Parts: sequence; structure tokens; C-alpha cells
Amino acid sequence: MAKQKKQPRPKALPPKGFRDYFGAEVEDRTAMLRKIAEVYHRYGFDALETSAVETVEALGKFLPDVDRPNEGVFAWEEDKDWLALRYDLTAPLARVYAQYRNDLPTPYRRYAMGPVWRNEKPGPGRFRQFYQCDADTVGSGSVAADAEICAMLADTLEAVGIPRGDYVIRVNNRKVLNGVMEVAGLSGDDKEAERGIVLRAIDKLDRLGTDGVRALLGDGRKDDSGDFTKGAGLNDEQAEVVMGFMDAKRDTGVATVARLRELVGGSTIGADGVAELEMIAGLLDAQGYTSDRIEIDPSVVRGLGYYTGPVYEAELTFEIEDEKGRPQRFGSVAGGGRYDDLVKRFTGQQVPATGVSIGVDRLLAALRAKGRIKSTEVGPVVVTVMDRDRMADYQAMVAELRNAGIRAEVYLGNPKSFGNQLKYADKRNSPAAVIVGSDEMEKGVVQIKDLILGAEIAKNATLEEWKDRPSQYEVPRDQMVAKLREILNGQG
Amino acid sequence: MAKQKKQPRPKALPPKGFRDYFGAEVEDRTAMLRKIAEVYHRYGFDALETSAVETVEALGKFLPDVDRPNEGVFAWEEDKDWLALRYDLTAPLARVYAQYRNDLPTPYRRYAMGPVWRNEKPGPGRFRQFYQCDADTVGSGSVAADAEICAMLADTLEAVGIPRGDYVIRVNNRKVLNGVMEVAGLSGDDKEAERGIVLRAIDKLDRLGTDGVRALLGDGRKDDSGDFTKGAGLNDEQAEVVMGFMDAKRDTGVATVARLRELVGGSTIGADGVAELEMIAGLLDAQGYTSDRIEIDPSVVRGLGYYTGPVYEAELTFEIEDEKGRPQRFGSVAGGGRYDDLVKRFTGQQVPATGVSIGVDRLLAALRAKGRIKSTEVGPVVVTVMDRDRMADYQAMVAELRNAGIRAEVYLGNPKSFGNQLKYADKRNSPAAVIVGSDEMEKGVVQIKDLILGAEIAKNATLEEWKDRPSQYEVPRDQMVAKLREILNGQG
Repeated sequence: MAKQKKQPRPKALPPKGFRDYFGAEVEDRTAMLRKIAEVYHRYGFDALETSAVETVEALGKFLPDVDRPNEGVFAWEEDKDWLALRYDLTAPLARVYAQYRNDLPTPYRRYAMGPVWRNEKPGPGRFRQFYQCDADTVGSGSVAADAEICAMLADTLEAVGIPRGDYVIRVNNRKVLNGVMEVAGLSGDDKEAERGIVLRAIDKLDRLGTDGVRALLGDGRKDDSGDFTKGAGLNDEQAEVVMGFMDAKRDTGVATVARLRELVGGSTIGADGVAELEMIAGLLDAQGYTSDRIEIDPSVVRGLGYYTGPVYEAELTFEIEDEKGRPQRFGSVAGGGRYDDLVKRFTGQQVPATGVSIGVDRLLAALRAKGRIKSTEVGPVVVTVMDRDRMADYQAMVAELRNAGIRAEVYLGNPKSFGNQLKYADKRNSPAAVIVGSDEMEKGVVQIKDLILGAEIAKNATLEEWKDRPSQYEVPRDQMVAKLREILNGQG
Repeated sequence: MAKQKKQPRPKALPPKGFRDYFGAEVEDRTAMLRKIAEVYHRYGFDALETSAVETVEALGKFLPDVDRPNEGVFAWEEDKDWLALRYDLTAPLARVYAQYRNDLPTPYRRYAMGPVWRNEKPGPGRFRQFYQCDADTVGSGSVAADAEICAMLADTLEAVGIPRGDYVIRVNNRKVLNGVMEVAGLSGDDKEAERGIVLRAIDKLDRLGTDGVRALLGDGRKDDSGDFTKGAGLNDEQAEVVMGFMDAKRDTGVATVARLRELVGGSTIGADGVAELEMIAGLLDAQGYTSDRIEIDPSVVRGLGYYTGPVYEAELTFEIEDEKGRPQRFGSVAGGGRYDDLVKRFTGQQVPATGVSIGVDRLLAALRAKGRIKSTEVGPVVVTVMDRDRMADYQAMVAELRNAGIRAEVYLGNPKSFGNQLKYADKRNSPAAVIVGSDEMEKGVVQIKDLILGAEIAKNATLEEWKDRPSQYEVPRDQMVAKLREILNGQG
């Protein structure tokens, strides 16, 4: 056996579950993050950027999907400390607030945006690194803070291009659910497991339907693949109370609140929750956020275990076609709620907090699906190289274009084949090419080829039209910028 | 011994060497990245965002600081693969270009911005996560590509607020250095170690001075702490050739080129390098980038081993005061060069490439040191809560302000103490507070307190001035927005 075998070449692939983003994908996301940050900022939220790496101990174990035990974080040992990539932006916020609580204003409104990492099994459209964009208010127990975040979420969705009527923000309150559980005989520390199963069952209403949820409230549910999920073991009477809760939405907020008040009966926490929902609705109404934008919906519970009060979720209500051409609602793009215990882990003192997380990549996908973001980017004007010795002249031309604010570049590949240069311009989606050979230099002119118009003519036009609508123009050198501006404006 | 001891509370700290960024620190960086991206984009560069995580095999070992063997990457094993956080943006680019080479245009101009991670010993101002902002042209062997990047770097520095005259971009060529080494008898595979020592010695000229470098070319150098660094072992004659190279800069580019041509003597590679430098200078001159902005400087070599041709570096030439009040040059904020072998690792085929990396955090620090970025952010207008039951009214007021584009918020802490509300506004650096109690509600007016003016008056004014210049105004409710605009504009 040859021991000195040559090292094999490394594979040119990202790790499993990771991907690359090119051109417009990156720029559209940056633009969207900027729009979101503008709204957050106008609401008085301050930016915070924590590092991607935290100690495992500071992060804690608050991963959303407790149903899938294999999922977790990317972690490693470093100088006897265990470090990990953050899995959300809330856990680092809790650490920061605990660390700087004497210096930060209280309440502390902060926004954060950036990638988070999940050590999950990757799947189609499911990546191990994705963007979140959060806003949280730490240190205020007032439901006015929750109402404010719901209002801000509505403003944010409209700011990024989701028109009113194409989204709805649903609000509920964990305390109401806890009241309902109390009525159903599910209170007490020994029933924590059951309550968890009920919570996650309700959270899956969209996907499993009423029958599926009902099965999970009882003995359990077998899915299409034959896998069995153990249920909460509720008897019929108990299950009916919970099912009634999910079904408590009425035509108006007032009617829904009245129905919930019935359901929570004598439960103090339940009554508290209903009162909070009523206050939130009142505050939002006063600011003009009526139920066409933000509504009370008892079927919203959010999967996360750590929520303690109001929870909210933004759903896009328009339909898109799935891969088989069937119409489908786009679904949830943001969610959050009140969590009053995360900072307590560090300090021992309860600090009330509430916040929202926007799934930026999903929101971008929605805007693309609706055609509200163009997915191809217009490339630069390409100055072709007809004469290699005149590179300095071409560079001077391209500098002139850039100084005029026109995206432009000189062809820097091998200029031997002019066809390759035009193919390159095509691949770049260039709007125009500038062509200057020795003849043009002598005459003091440039040739400008309108590549978009040219492509259209080549596709559709008759010979007569071709003659009438030239796609190539000869203009004096000093009119190059003006002519290109004219062409670019015409294409816009 | 108690085995069931309660878990200790987690420490509220980031891992060693990592830090958090607040408010203006984040927003200033975002604004700077946007300005840089605009220039890069105008030059025809396309955005690329790779994931933070790569396989160790794809990253390879191209860490800049070979002198410090303990430095490296953050890496961990995952499903039998070794994964790592990227340590720069060039290694992922090489992987991406190799992976997508059939789909990408050639040449491929791409820019990338984002954090990178180094598993280095942290120190003052030295963090394990920091931002880079790169632009590279892959697939062009033309020095026009190098010249373009130097021109773009000049435009970028001016775009972010470094005026002409406050920076210089220095260009050199590794081939010239290789030619000089050849003349000094340091060519050949068996002299690789010596060449490496020479390279890194020259790179430290700024820090060690001529004597220090000279020592490293010879037997070695003992530093102030007594640590000894082994030298390249050059004899006097050899060392003089190298020292002459570092000292080859003349008053004009033409004179420097002439001097370099002398130094490389009969070396083919050296002559090639000189010719390339001459071409770069010619191309830049033609675009108006004269030696007040971009100059040939043989003392620039860049520490990285992988450069194969032109190298360049941007230095800020203005002075700032160090911690002891001594004037000091700010130094290098960006650098790069041509590397023709990085893609070859994956494909076996040489792909010429050249690119620059801007140290965004250093550049921000420079702008702050020069007072060109204000480091405190103006906070939101704070609507105080005088009457807890009127929260809906306060929310409606704040909504009106936000809709008018004014950053504003309701105080969401405990409203019991009005003093606490004003302290909060002060901590937020709020420009104004709005005060509305029952009296104001009845009269249909609002009180507006100019907090900046108020603070100034409190500090400086006599009683007479205080009376003449009120810092609190009562205006009708429907003039709230107009009055606040007036105050905010006056403060600007």
C-alpha cells in the first residue's frame, strides 16, 4: 500500500444543509432588512448585534421544536468551555440584558437581525443557517408593550410590500389557554407533560386539522407513514373543553372575548388572560389597527414552551401555487409573544419581556412568489475590448460611466473573441454594451448596443420592424453617457 | 456531600474574545457597508453570501499569520465531517467559484461582506469575530483587474468619508520581490523557508523599523521581552539586495519603476513584475488616479503566503492620538492582491484571481477618531404617561408621530414616578418629551419639553436667559407634530 499517496482534492461543496446566496438574493434581503430596521427604529427600538458564538451555558435549552429531540445546536469545546452558534436572537438578548442591566434603559427596546444556526436534519427548503429579524421590549410588564409590537409588525409587513388585506396578525394569550387547561383539570406540576402535548397539538391545527388535534389530545395519532405520536391522554370531556377553546373565534373581537370568558369559567389566570386580550384589542383599536389587520384568534398558541402571556403570529392570507399547481395559503412569516422568565435564569429576578421574530427568508420567498420582487438583477453596462492596447481608454470610459452613476465595467476576460464578450454581457444580464474599435476611436464616436431591445427584436420582430427599430446606435464620444441614460431609462 | 445541589446560574457573559455592539455602533457599520456595497456594485461586482460554516477541507490552511502557530479556526466534528467557521471571505469564494464555475460568468466579479472568525488569543481591541468586506475578480489574469480594484478602493474610501489626501493606496508586485530574491540567490524550492522569513520580515517594516528587519534577514532578532525570532540567515550581500528593494521608492512612479528594473537585473520574473507595475500605473493614470491617491511602493509586500502578483494596501495617512496622547498614523485599513492558485486546490486548473479586503471595524474606528461619525445616537421622542388609564390616547399620539416620520415611543415602564420617566428619556438621549395629563386632555393641548435645549439651559443660563428661552411649550393637540418638527430641526 502506497503511504505517500497524493492528497485528494477537496470537494467544492458547502457542508450539508448550508447554501450560498447570489446577487439579487443577497441584495433583496439586505434591502428588506433595511426597511424592517427603519420601522423598528422609528418605534424607538435600538440596534443590538451580539456575536454568533455564545457559551452553551448562556444559551440554555429553549429550542422551539421539542418534538424532535435530535435537533439542537452546533457546539464544540474550546479551552474547557463549551461554545455554540446561537440558535435564535432571544437567548443572546436575555444574556445581554442580564449583563448590562444597570447601564441599559428600562424598558429596553432592541432590534436585532442576522443569521441563526440549527443543527437539524436538512430538508427541501430547510437550511441550517437562516436569517431572523427580531424586536423585543425587555423590562415592561404592560400589555401596551405587546400591543405596540403587534402594531409594529403590521407596519413592518406593509413597509416591505405586503399590502393591507394580504396579511393578518393573530393575537392570543397563554393565560387564557392555561385557564382553559385549569377548567379541563390539567393544572398542577404533575400535569406539565400533558399540558406540553396539548400546546403542541393545538399549534399543529393548521397542518393536522381538527381530527388530528383531537387524536393527539386523546390516546395519540398515527400519521400517514405509520409513525405513532403519543397523545395527552385526555378523556372526552377534557378534550372537548380544549377543542372548544380552539374554536372560540367569533366574528368580532368583542364576541370572541365574551366566548373566551365563558370558557375560562372561574379560573383566575384565565380571566386575567381574557382581560389582557381585551386591553390589547382596545389599545390597537385606538391607533386604528382594527380586526382587518390584527384580530384575536384563540387557535394561535405558538409552539415555544417559554411564553407566559400574549402570543402573536403574522400570517400571509394570499394564495400561491404549490409545486403541483394547487392553490395554497402562504402561512406564517412572523411570531412571538411574552416570556417573563428568560432573564431570570441569569439574575434570579423575573424580568418581563415580549418580542417578535420575523422569518426574513420566508417573507422574501412570499414576495417573490407574488412577483413583488423581481428575481433577476440588471447587470452592468459592458464596455467591450476591441483593441487590447487601448485598455487605458476603455478604463477611462468606464470610469466616466461610473462617475455618472451608471453601473459599468470593462470586459476583463480574454478579448480575442468578440462573440465571447457579448455572451458574457448576456450572462450578466447587461442592459447595453459599448463598442469602440480603432475606427470609432479615430472618428471620435462610440457604438452602443441596446441588449434588451436587441434581444426582443431578435425574438419577435419582422424584417421591417428590425429596420425601423435599430438596437445599435453610433453617437459622438461625448454623448455616450447621455445616450446610455436614455436607453437605461427606456428599459426601466 | 449534597449531590442534588441546585444548578448554579449561568454567567451573563459572551465567550472570551467576543463582544456585543449597541445602537449607533451597529447602525454606523450597516450604513458603511451599504456605502461600500454601492461602490462595489457600480463597478459591476455582484453580491455573494456564503454560510458562516464550511468544511475544514474546503477552507484549507491559508490563515494570514503563519508566525503564530497557535492561531487557527473554530472547528468541530459533525457526522464524521469536520466543520469550521470561515476565517476570511476568500477561501469560501474559491470554493464557490470551483463549485459553480460552469454557471458563473467569467470573469466573475463578486463582493461579500460579513463576519469572520479567528481562534486567536484575544487582546485589547482584538476580537475573535470581526467584519470583512471583500471584492474579488476571479478568472481574469489581466493587470487591468488589479488596477480596477485599486481604483475602486480609492472610490470606496472617499465614499465612506475619507477625503482625498487622508489616504494612500500603495501598490507593489510579488514578482518583483521574487526577482529580487532570485538576484539575492534565494530562488529554488529548497529556499522556500528563507523566502517566507524574508517576506514576513519586510511586512513588519512599519513596526520593527529598518534595523529590526535587517536583523531578521540575518541571524535573527531578540525583541524587548527577550524572545528570539530566528532570521533568514542571509549574508550581508544578500541582505543588502533585499534592503535595497524595500528602499526603492522614488519621488515619481516612473523613477521607482526604473530603480526596480535595476534591482531585478536579469531575473525574468522580476522584469515581468516591473512591467506589470508599469501597466497598472498607466491604467490608473488614464482614469485620473494619480500618485496622490495610488502610488507604487516596494515596501508593501502583504504577509499572506498565497499572493502571486500585484499586492496593494490602503493606508490612512492622518494622525490620531494614541492612548498616551502621542500622535500616531492610523495605518492600514484594507489590503489585497493577486492569488492565482486558490481555486486550483479544488479543480486542478489554475484560475487567476485578485481581490481586496476592507477591515470595516478599523475603518469605522478611524472615522470615529476623526469625528466624522457621531458616536451617540439621537433617541426617540418620549410620550410620557401621566395617567395610566389613558394609555390608548398616548399610543394614538405616538402612532401619529411615527406616521409623520418622527421616531417616538410611549414610556412603557412603571409610570408612577414622573422623574423616572424623564431619567429614562435622558438615558435614551431623547430630543423631546411630550407630557399630557388630565388638564391638558381637557384643554386639548400638549406640553412639549425640549430636552436638549433644557439640558443646555440648566447647565449654562442665568435666570434671565432661562425666562427668555423656555424649553417647554404648550401647543394645541393638532400642532404637536409641527412643533416637534420645529424643535427637532432646530436641534439638528
